[in-house]
Amino acid sequence: MTSSTRYTVIGAGNGGKAMAAHLALMGFETTLYNRTPEHIEAIRQRRGIELDSGETGPRGFGQLALVTSDMKEALDRCDVAMVVVPSSAHAEVARAMAPYLRDGQIILLHPGRTCGAIEVAKVLRDERCRADVTVAEAETFIYASRSDGPAQARIFRIKEAVPLAALPAYRTGDVLGVIRDAFPQYIDGGNVLRTGLNNMGAIFHPALTLLNAGRIESTRGDFQFYIDGVTPSVARVLEVIDRERVTVAAALGIRARTAQEWLALAYNATGDSLYEAIQNQPGYYGIKAPPTLNHRYIFEDVPMSLVPIAALGQRYGVAVAGIDSIIRLACIIHRTDYWRRGRTLDRLGIANLSVSELTRYVEEGTLE
Amino acid sequence: MTSSTRYTVIGAGNGGKAMAAHLALMGFETTLYNRTPEHIEAIRQRRGIELDSGETGPRGFGQLALVTSDMKEALDRCDVAMVVVPSSAHAEVARAMAPYLRDGQIILLHPGRTCGAIEVAKVLRDERCRADVTVAEAETFIYASRSDGPAQARIFRIKEAVPLAALPAYRTGDVLGVIRDAFPQYIDGGNVLRTGLNNMGAIFHPALTLLNAGRIESTRGDFQFYIDGVTPSVARVLEVIDRERVTVAAALGIRARTAQEWLALAYNATGDSLYEAIQNQPGYYGIKAPPTLNHRYIFEDVPMSLVPIAALGQRYGVAVAGIDSIIRLACIIHRTDYWRRGRTLDRLGIANLSVSELTRYVEEGTLE
Repeated sequence: MTSSTRYTVIGAGNGGKAMAAHLALMGFETTLYNRTPEHIEAIRQRRGIELDSGETGPRGFGQLALVTSDMKEALDRCDVAMVVVPSSAHAEVARAMAPYLRDGQIILLHPGRTCGAIEVAKVLRDERCRADVTVAEAETFIYASRSDGPAQARIFRIKEAVPLAALPAYRTGDVLGVIRDAFPQYIDGGNVLRTGLNNMGAIFHPALTLLNAGRIESTRGDFQFYIDGVTPSVARVLEVIDRERVTVAAALGIRARTAQEWLALAYNATGDSLYEAIQNQPGYYGIKAPPTLNHRYIFEDVPMSLVPIAALGQRYGVAVAGIDSIIRLACIIHRTDYWRRGRTLDRLGIANLSVSELTRYVEEGTLE
Repeated sequence: MTSSTRYTVIGAGNGGKAMAAHLALMGFETTLYNRTPEHIEAIRQRRGIELDSGETGPRGFGQLALVTSDMKEALDRCDVAMVVVPSSAHAEVARAMAPYLRDGQIILLHPGRTCGAIEVAKVLRDERCRADVTVAEAETFIYASRSDGPAQARIFRIKEAVPLAALPAYRTGDVLGVIRDAFPQYIDGGNVLRTGLNNMGAIFHPALTLLNAGRIESTRGDFQFYIDGVTPSVARVLEVIDRERVTVAAALGIRARTAQEWLALAYNATGDSLYEAIQNQPGYYGIKAPPTLNHRYIFEDVPMSLVPIAALGQRYGVAVAGIDSIIRLACIIHRTDYWRRGRTLDRLGIANLSVSELTRYVEEGTLE
């Protein structure tokens, strides 16, 4: 590789470790940042991560340029900050980055969930960050990965085509150009409303979890989540909230993929109904349910995915009764006000925009 | 028995058969009515029902005075019409009875679910029934019963104290007096708002079913409904919708029992939380879940219990977000508008009443 792009991976969870190791193995100068030093101590000592990916995938020891818990240091020599943290931490990461950002840097969220780039941009404005950075988000995480130890990562699969969008959208091409040598898999995702409204976790995770709440909690998740958990009636609920999501997108002038279209595209899994399509996805067999209801399928996906979709629906006149009932049940079960924690339009700084103003914002970056 | 009260039991499901046989065995002149003649053909031929109740309960052959599908005939010699049909059929039964009712007759709903007596009274007004009848409702069904065959019934348990209220409430004493020889178990339930708002099925049935939707449908109900189905998180949802119900009652000046109070009272089952109280109710062990989601726990309890509670809450300023989300999910899963089918205040004829007008109506019968 001759590219001189310097990467900093923010977050050393299993996804961040896989990405850092992969980048390093591809020959890029790679820094790994994690807020809690203890979590990266083993990596710091070895100055790298052991990556395994089966026979044909990337494998070997990915030597890192720097392993740090100092954000200033982490951003110092970086062109692209790859943010691989739960979306509920995006705002906090943005606040931590704000003082140290420089013109020309790229912040890329893996993934943005819904409106992640918009939230990060809002935090940077609130923090009075004056650097001309580009915030972008991926529609989904590029790897299926796991971690086998403190300085180990394993990649099962690298997705072939992951949509990505910058805020504003006219910079998407630049971002794709900068990361192409490392990740040719990323493709133009339109704009960040489109990538955010194509978030399938919003549809599958919370409703499927809640409609199996009793079973998850009494069996500690000992059943096949998608295969046993998605019955015809449960699928009907998923279909309705999926239709609400697609309708919210349509109200914003965006043609979002339905869950069925996504299953056909991503897994070649088809059927006459969402229920059939799910049962026809071989990859869902064997996947266990979460062992507890205290899981990111609720505490991340409800505030960071369902709340912004519902908020956009309410603002622009789309009935979101199904999504709303899932949010309410999640609030009750976790005794948490997920509206207050979540990505409301106020928090995103877009509460007063008309559809055309919002569109201009995500396309051109012009606010008001 | 020397009482000359003549009973007609409307509805020959397992509850109606148990009641008719029991009344007949106690020596009361008893008629059994069922709309569909085929369902009572075996009873008509034998002119009675075989009742079993274990060692100490009522048992033997209950000889009936009349077995009929003709409503005029059914009401002709009757003092008290014991209505033992699903509450979703109350309106239809009232319409069928309207032309044949006479002054002094009592219509008693077993049970009313929520606002059953109010709905029946509204139908009788709409049908221009001029007879001075008393409509009353029981808070719950007096028997735990089953049917072993076409002309057989089995009673497992007769509840010791079942609240009952007439509409208007000043007639409750009269109704209790008329039926006392047969059923000393009935006690004064206050008024029909109180009996209706003490409906515990509203709390337990729909939410518990929906929060176990996947499991019910994938196992055909092969788990213990209350024991495995009510986990701490599920119980939290039940507690919230129970609190909403109790708050709706409070807005109407009624002190309704909480589900925990009811478990303590009815089953001596106590605990620090609703979850514990349920796990401490030995009678819940062994009770299987419904085999399908197409069950009265949804199609009866949602429109006839949750909808009127939510409607009263909305009308009188009580937040019913939890109940509302359960109703919405039920609508989605059954592709049915349960608000349209349900006991809304319009359908009950009480949409324009203030709380004091509503109270006067249920206490004194004065409408407007």
